Amino acid sequence: MAFGATAEMSTIVHQAGGFGMIPAGKSPSVSHTDPASNLARARTTKGFDSSAQLKAHLTTARKSLSIAAGAPIPVGVGFIGWILDQTEASADPRLPGVLAEKPAAIWLAFGAALGTYVAQIRAFDAQRTDGHRTRVFAIVNDVEGALRAAGAWGVDVVVAQGIEAGGHGGAEALPVLSLVPAIRAAFPPGACPPIVAAGGVSTGAQIAALLVLGASGVALGTRFLYTHESCYTREMKAVLVGAGWGATTRGLMFDEVNGTMGWPAKHDGRAIANGIVEDWAAGLPLSARLERFEESRARGEKDRLVIWAGVGVGMTDEIRALKDVFEELHSDTVKALRKSSSLLA
Amino acid sequence: MAFGATAEMSTIVHQAGGFGMIPAGKSPSVSHTDPASNLARARTTKGFDSSAQLKAHLTTARKSLSIAAGAPIPVGVGFIGWILDQTEASADPRLPGVLAEKPAAIWLAFGAALGTYVAQIRAFDAQRTDGHRTRVFAIVNDVEGALRAAGAWGVDVVVAQGIEAGGHGGAEALPVLSLVPAIRAAFPPGACPPIVAAGGVSTGAQIAALLVLGASGVALGTRFLYTHESCYTREMKAVLVGAGWGATTRGLMFDEVNGTMGWPAKHDGRAIANGIVEDWAAGLPLSARLERFEESRARGEKDRLVIWAGVGVGMTDEIRALKDVFEELHSDTVKALRKSSSLLA
Repeated sequence: MAFGATAEMSTIVHQAGGFGMIPAGKSPSVSHTDPASNLARARTTKGFDSSAQLKAHLTTARKSLSIAAGAPIPVGVGFIGWILDQTEASADPRLPGVLAEKPAAIWLAFGAALGTYVAQIRAFDAQRTDGHRTRVFAIVNDVEGALRAAGAWGVDVVVAQGIEAGGHGGAEALPVLSLVPAIRAAFPPGACPPIVAAGGVSTGAQIAALLVLGASGVALGTRFLYTHESCYTREMKAVLVGAGWGATTRGLMFDEVNGTMGWPAKHDGRAIANGIVEDWAAGLPLSARLERFEESRARGEKDRLVIWAGVGVGMTDEIRALKDVFEELHSDTVKALRKSSSLLA
Repeated sequence: MAFGATAEMSTIVHQAGGFGMIPAGKSPSVSHTDPASNLARARTTKGFDSSAQLKAHLTTARKSLSIAAGAPIPVGVGFIGWILDQTEASADPRLPGVLAEKPAAIWLAFGAALGTYVAQIRAFDAQRTDGHRTRVFAIVNDVEGALRAAGAWGVDVVVAQGIEAGGHGGAEALPVLSLVPAIRAAFPPGACPPIVAAGGVSTGAQIAALLVLGASGVALGTRFLYTHESCYTREMKAVLVGAGWGATTRGLMFDEVNGTMGWPAKHDGRAIANGIVEDWAAGLPLSARLERFEESRARGEKDRLVIWAGVGVGMTDEIRALKDVFEELHSDTVKALRKSSSLLA
């Protein structure tokens, strides 16, 4: 959800009864009140969010939620592993400053050696005097990843991200309806960590289904792009609203023109399939694809925008307030679970 | 499930509380008591099951279930559309003879003009004097297919088959967790036909999840290959038992060497990824791939067998009695639904 979510969104999700995450990394670092400039700023900013910027996000959340200084903030911060590899080795490491602000959780994704950061978080917590413990989430895309994250790394929650997911993830991941039981079956009875299911989830009935399947929770990304608060631009949202089922595809062609390469092996991203995919499918060399990408941008066209989105884009066609979307999801989830109870009657 | 299921299996499923389908088409037409010869016979038989053979399958089911002559048989018969296109134009059309035996349902799949056969079934029923009405199922792989099947064709049940499914299906189908809500959302409230969810389903928790999602039922194929009764050969079953998550892949390379081409556009099949896929990925021409395929078969090797299977292959590693598998699925489904009720407490 880098480029899509903001600190403000994480607090609205919290207030609506969910658990919000602030995306760190190479984020646009702008408020949703200034959406038009996001893409351009993200693409021209060479670096990643500084620790000061990340702390500012957390301060925003702290203020919105009226959390006293020094008390834990009930939202999380998401980090991309291969960006952490760069920032934590720099003169301005990001994790210590963020951990000092006491977010409830850190979400780690997309790195071969995320265990290092889990250990760093545990070590930080061990030196606290107030007993605060940061929950650690890690995205996994297969059974081996889940065993490593929960076993070798000792994360608290595995996020089982299926092939349906928008943005980045495992290029060969199983669909989430198979990935969750696959992971559950790989652990001895009673020893499976909490699983948060992710990928293509955009309705309450899907959330209910995944909870029945054995997930402890679900993660939604794309669904929240269809909100006034998402910092996707007006143009990007217009494309999302018009997108039908099957509008997305996976690959690295989006990152190649977007200048966002660096993902681990067997990872790629799902986005709206458009001219970027056509250029790539036509076999054009990267230089020509970049040229078309830049020309399209200069002309203000919509058909070569990089718009990360999951397969759930077909389900929704209205931009609404995040709070309303969240409340509908909750209500529909409860309705589906109620109905399911009647299946046993 | 052609090449995998038998009339005997459909009766065991019925007796266990499910609804069994007898696969018609180019099936091995042998009893499960003679599994070793299935593959060879299927590949050397030029034609498809005759109407006499299909009626014999139904007679087997009738006898097993002690159904009186003239009474409906509580199992279905599955037809492949492009094979029907050939058989129904031949001197021995298959549908009339099958319909005369009164199976409870006909399952149609993989044809651009299945509406013709739906109309034929309705016309047949209209001329009966006993009021028997054949339920018509049709596999769909997208929203448009569901609207056409339930609207223009007027089928009773749409089978929403996701990309996870083993054997043949939509090459670009959504995963089943998205396909079912996509189809539901495409119909006006209250006007959605019953949906049977199919694809990658191999556990009771998945069945419960799909029922909560809004499916009226689920269809399982691969899971029943792991039974003594399935007419996959011992060698094929050994491969299935050893297969892990991610062991399957989709494409037409299996059909190309197997001599089973004829599928409609945008359809292909999912099977165990093996030497057949390697030969294809290496860019070998079909003649060379066929040569390797035949050599491998002559040597009795396992690595170029065509073994249709869905992504659920990773979940199961034991060949058991079909009845026991079915009872476990039922019990686990109920267990998952019971647990889900507690989510509301």
